[in-house]
Amino acid sequence: MKLLRVGPPGEERPAVRVDDDRLLDLSPVTPEIDGAFLSSGGVDRARAAVEAGALPELDAEGLRVGAPVARPGKIVCVGLNYRDHAAETGAAIPARPVVFMKDPGTVVGPYDEVLVPRGSRKTDWEVELAVVIGRRARYLAGPEEAPEVIAGYAVSHDVSEREFQLEYSPQWDLGKSCETFNPLGPWLVTADEVADPQDLGLRLTVNGVKRQHGHTRDMIFPVHHLVSYLSQYMVLEPGDVINTGTPAGVALGLPGTPYLRPGDTVELEIDGLGGQRQTFGQA
Amino acid sequence: MKLLRVGPPGEERPAVRVDDDRLLDLSPVTPEIDGAFLSSGGVDRARAAVEAGALPELDAEGLRVGAPVARPGKIVCVGLNYRDHAAETGAAIPARPVVFMKDPGTVVGPYDEVLVPRGSRKTDWEVELAVVIGRRARYLAGPEEAPEVIAGYAVSHDVSEREFQLEYSPQWDLGKSCETFNPLGPWLVTADEVADPQDLGLRLTVNGVKRQHGHTRDMIFPVHHLVSYLSQYMVLEPGDVINTGTPAGVALGLPGTPYLRPGDTVELEIDGLGGQRQTFGQA
Repeated sequence: MKLLRVGPPGEERPAVRVDDDRLLDLSPVTPEIDGAFLSSGGVDRARAAVEAGALPELDAEGLRVGAPVARPGKIVCVGLNYRDHAAETGAAIPARPVVFMKDPGTVVGPYDEVLVPRGSRKTDWEVELAVVIGRRARYLAGPEEAPEVIAGYAVSHDVSEREFQLEYSPQWDLGKSCETFNPLGPWLVTADEVADPQDLGLRLTVNGVKRQHGHTRDMIFPVHHLVSYLSQYMVLEPGDVINTGTPAGVALGLPGTPYLRPGDTVELEIDGLGGQRQTFGQA
Repeated sequence: MKLLRVGPPGEERPAVRVDDDRLLDLSPVTPEIDGAFLSSGGVDRARAAVEAGALPELDAEGLRVGAPVARPGKIVCVGLNYRDHAAETGAAIPARPVVFMKDPGTVVGPYDEVLVPRGSRKTDWEVELAVVIGRRARYLAGPEEAPEVIAGYAVSHDVSEREFQLEYSPQWDLGKSCETFNPLGPWLVTADEVADPQDLGLRLTVNGVKRQHGHTRDMIFPVHHLVSYLSQYMVLEPGDVINTGTPAGVALGLPGTPYLRPGDTVELEIDGLGGQRQTFGQA
């Protein structure tokens, strides 16, 4: 199932995408797509309502698409998790996942404007597979327990300001947490529709020029390993988001490639998870 | 004013501390002490209700004290912000604030049990002055605008696992985000009661032995500077918490000093902001 949230910022309503042209209003089932919905069997209730024909159709024309999960409790990010991206940034292949965090307030919709921060000279792109947690995860016994706590997947744009991230201090979060820096969606695709999270192509263009074309098979630490690993060090709660890293092709790794400026357009997509398109503005 | 939240975890009710022995129930004014309360003039409404004698007294006997702010949207931490602590850890005095984040789900009450994570050998203490944001802060013009967005201050215990933080990857968040790792409170002391945030002594003992005894005058980047600085790189929202760094005296900086183990008791206090006491357990 493809779950989404549509409407003006802060007033999104939950919906289900049944095919290319049709959205159903999920409001009769839940007021919100969030951790409480995901952890209480909400996906099953939504599916039953769709099958029973109990949901009214939504007029999708002109509707803004928001992030598919209402404000996550936290966004955990994994750095340098693709071999080719680690190589392009000059970093060694890490022995353990490199874990950092992003302000969860950075989440916006997949087609919303993203703002180049004031003073920024190095705003960069990163297409990523996002994992959305559906059940509380604490000290999982191993990767084999990860599927039980994963609600689904989404496209995530982990926008990054490299000067803030890498040159202002050794800690990266500052350059990851700028306003609007995490477009998410368009959909939360439930885990049953993603046969293998390690078999997904990821693509990103800037102003129509191909920049990233990676594949989740090249992850150093695969999704189930990451979820189990993180659960040893923090409690993953329903609605939390994990950005699982980006493949090669970011501006940081392409000498001479310009960073993002206001007016630039970035498009990104992941197999089966849909696509995003953002035009950048100035903060 | 000293605002607090009392009751079982997840069922806290808002209260005002009027003197050593008396708590008033703030429920008639607000269901919660959170960003919405702080940004909507809630402190003024609370003060008016206290002065009007409109609030019933609470029987404080046996009541658990929770964190004074309902789950923050984010916890931003500043590392190495005291000269003596930077020195004890062997780090250079940073040219800019070192900014990282902590899972906001780590917040617990000031007397709650804190859990030593499984596999931990280096669970460490850090007494810190927490700043609680009361109004949205985005690109402040300078430190002089910071007082307008600060709701108040609290004692924060930035518990840290040094092996997870420093040895597993260069990014610190993993060792800062373990379950229960951020006792906060007992009170949110409104900014009008803190004449100068750079004139506060901070103290911490472990099993009765003095370990930290610092003073906020020794901060490298003072509170108003930090708030203004952070607002250039992220949006600070009402209810967000900033942990402003710890003075010297942590186990990491005291060779031969044992790290925390289950059964240990840590007590910490800051002038005018009250004290905390946690006994450690095993996760």
